[in-house]
Amino acid sequence: MDDAAPMGLSPAVPTGSDTGPTTALLTDQYELTMLRAALADGTAHRRAVFEVFARRLPHGRRYGVVAGTGRLLDALERFRFDEETVAFLRRRGIVDDATADWLRDYRFRGNMWGYAEGECYFPGSPILVVEGTFAEAVLLETLALSIYNHDSAIASAASRMTAAAGSRPIVEMGSRRTHESAAVAAARAAYVAGFASTSNLAAGRCYDLPTGGTSAHAFTLLHDSEEEAFAAQVAALGMGTTLLVDTYGVREAVRTAVEVAGPGLGAVRIDSGDLAVLAHDVRAELDALGATDTRILVSGDLDEYAIASLVAAPVDRYGVGTALVVGSGHPTAELVYKLVARSVGTEPDSPMEGVAKLSTGKPTHKGRKWAHRRLEDGTAVAEVVGTHPECTVDGCRPLLVPLVTEGKIVGREPIAAARERHLRSRAELPPTALKLSRGEPVLPTTYDDGEHAGHTGQLEQTGHTRGEGGAR
Amino acid sequence: MDDAAPMGLSPAVPTGSDTGPTTALLTDQYELTMLRAALADGTAHRRAVFEVFARRLPHGRRYGVVAGTGRLLDALERFRFDEETVAFLRRRGIVDDATADWLRDYRFRGNMWGYAEGECYFPGSPILVVEGTFAEAVLLETLALSIYNHDSAIASAASRMTAAAGSRPIVEMGSRRTHESAAVAAARAAYVAGFASTSNLAAGRCYDLPTGGTSAHAFTLLHDSEEEAFAAQVAALGMGTTLLVDTYGVREAVRTAVEVAGPGLGAVRIDSGDLAVLAHDVRAELDALGATDTRILVSGDLDEYAIASLVAAPVDRYGVGTALVVGSGHPTAELVYKLVARSVGTEPDSPMEGVAKLSTGKPTHKGRKWAHRRLEDGTAVAEVVGTHPECTVDGCRPLLVPLVTEGKIVGREPIAAARERHLRSRAELPPTALKLSRGEPVLPTTYDDGEHAGHTGQLEQTGHTRGEGGAR
Repeated sequence: MDDAAPMGLSPAVPTGSDTGPTTALLTDQYELTMLRAALADGTAHRRAVFEVFARRLPHGRRYGVVAGTGRLLDALERFRFDEETVAFLRRRGIVDDATADWLRDYRFRGNMWGYAEGECYFPGSPILVVEGTFAEAVLLETLALSIYNHDSAIASAASRMTAAAGSRPIVEMGSRRTHESAAVAAARAAYVAGFASTSNLAAGRCYDLPTGGTSAHAFTLLHDSEEEAFAAQVAALGMGTTLLVDTYGVREAVRTAVEVAGPGLGAVRIDSGDLAVLAHDVRAELDALGATDTRILVSGDLDEYAIASLVAAPVDRYGVGTALVVGSGHPTAELVYKLVARSVGTEPDSPMEGVAKLSTGKPTHKGRKWAHRRLEDGTAVAEVVGTHPECTVDGCRPLLVPLVTEGKIVGREPIAAARERHLRSRAELPPTALKLSRGEPVLPTTYDDGEHAGHTGQLEQTGHTRGEGGAR
Repeated sequence: MDDAAPMGLSPAVPTGSDTGPTTALLTDQYELTMLRAALADGTAHRRAVFEVFARRLPHGRRYGVVAGTGRLLDALERFRFDEETVAFLRRRGIVDDATADWLRDYRFRGNMWGYAEGECYFPGSPILVVEGTFAEAVLLETLALSIYNHDSAIASAASRMTAAAGSRPIVEMGSRRTHESAAVAAARAAYVAGFASTSNLAAGRCYDLPTGGTSAHAFTLLHDSEEEAFAAQVAALGMGTTLLVDTYGVREAVRTAVEVAGPGLGAVRIDSGDLAVLAHDVRAELDALGATDTRILVSGDLDEYAIASLVAAPVDRYGVGTALVVGSGHPTAELVYKLVARSVGTEPDSPMEGVAKLSTGKPTHKGRKWAHRRLEDGTAVAEVVGTHPECTVDGCRPLLVPLVTEGKIVGREPIAAARERHLRSRAELPPTALKLSRGEPVLPTTYDDGEHAGHTGQLEQTGHTRGEGGAR
């Protein structure tokens, strides 16, 4: 786990560096108290498999998008109990001396597999599989969930927006509406799901994302007239800049903008009003003024539905803020981290046993899982989840890739790879996946469970809604 | 701005230290490009007043809660353009040499006033007033909004939950459902709004909050039997611990718990099922076993409505997760940061002029504002917002307190002060404030605007809903 991660250094979310602040306390207290009790009775050293999965998608969503994988690997590298951290836990009485000693030496030395970042997922998809001793794996629950729940929620919403926008680029500009560090991660997740750029400079620096942004209404109001404001902006940023034209009257502003910048003006932005009507008016005005190549950027409370409603409007680019960072109504992916198997004893050859909570309404399938996507003629038709590495069904591609092998991070990749993967993964889904209306997940999750169906290829199909899956 | 802030050091969100990572890029790019253009034409040096306010409360909410003030002051102290940061901006072509030079020397040297943290707020409340040159104030837009929008959304939801819970404590346990750094801030905001403790260890360390948490279902499943799991937990954590009793059957688990720990068992936790029914069953079972002092903690998708529905159930404590960190349906406060006044020229005695965007649907009142809460017989009856420091109406208490004076942070306070203030501020509201049903803000915001009504005390009352306020 000492690979260098040449991804730059974020001021808010330092990544890829072992010297950054520890992530070890981004953790719920019970992980430490469970560790303490399990170290005391020896069960901490049983081998364990935890899985991250969604029991259901947010209501009406047809697919989810995995994001956060790269961030988890960065955070894992910095998950260390340094002296100050251990001292805090001792001072609070959360851990005893034996646990403190164990924590000082803590490195995750187990294995992780996961859906590659950008991949689509469905209820029951084992997005992340964590294998190690109970002690080393239980500590990662909160950190893994926080990262995946946030980033996947944002990417899942973002993917609907980029699907609705088609070939028109979307600029992410939601930083102000969410926590300042969540904003950086949101910009990254949006990029994975196909956004073109972000206004967030920390994201630009940390993840080498394209950034954009030119001016706000305050800049116009600062000046004595709109004309002076536009002239100042063009003088400083060139005529390729984007002028904001809705501080006073839009049509007059467009005329002023072209007078000031000339017909080579890069773009105008409309941030309020009836965007469809205004876009038509502004396009006509720009064309009449000879500014036929000047682009129109619209923003202002856009979500995937508003984007879709503008499909016939002469809009060149969208700016999306609030709806993106709040996951368009679903700010968390509601993924869970569950123990699905553990060894009977602590000896290296002690057999593994599948485990699950028995409570109603929360289906959990026992045993460590593998996942495949079944395709017919290039179109995905089912998620096949089973307790064996090989899929017994024809036409399946494997979904789990190695992320960490015996403590060594092996799953890092450029963010562009995740972005390209997402577009491929989405394109492979049935066309109904891209409908914005509420619906069922477009792929059923079928369980190819060795304990029940054997290797016969006979599949059990579980329902899509909560409770139907049933606990075994 | 070099006051020491003895609040500990967070691994995720270092605070109170000038040596931590800079916050300067937690910023939208347009703030830098506006700065660049305004430095070039000299308008950057005009004095300016920006205000943070809500155009409206989230639909149906009766009051909002200000949170994030302390975090903003910490972040402001670390808002510095170091060489690496400037180099990034130059490399990307976002700033020119003159702007880069200006940024290297940047310190906020202006003034800030704000609603004290924990105070209730209403549409139009000037939660934060930032006064400085345009250049120094425009840079803080995104950072200020990110912090206030997140923290106030969480505190506003949390306050409804603590109001519904009455004297029963609530434990915050939502970290896993939100971004890992947002989780730390959410725990802090929840505490401001009256939560008793948090499961988040980084929040415990960074803000010295009480923390709690003992075990998850995984701990029971790790063991060969529930009895062994309970015995291990009691052996390690003492009989005052909280045992989780819904991994298999709740009633059997309660009997096992008391057998293992004795009737002095601290508490049991129920995390699924029909909590009201189960709480009654568990209470009866505990009492029958002589464990009359054993408390019952319930958790599992609780929000303010679920808490209220459990008022008659024998529940001692609540654990709230997802609903808290997503703001119970409103994850952002939708606060805005608007230029409301700027000087006509750049000379020190140049007069100030109120400014506002003219577009429809987004009411903005011109001019720097002061805010007071008008009380009758100890009950708040109106928010009085005016363009003069003194309120012309009887029975008003001032709401703006100094936070930064000529660049020096003067508004720091212990988080306990904000927490106590919130309880006082909420208690002062009309009783309908605590109704959970959808309603209008319980206080009207009245404008005592020197430009229009003069000092006559004649007030204009604006509507509560979007658009009714009207732009002037």
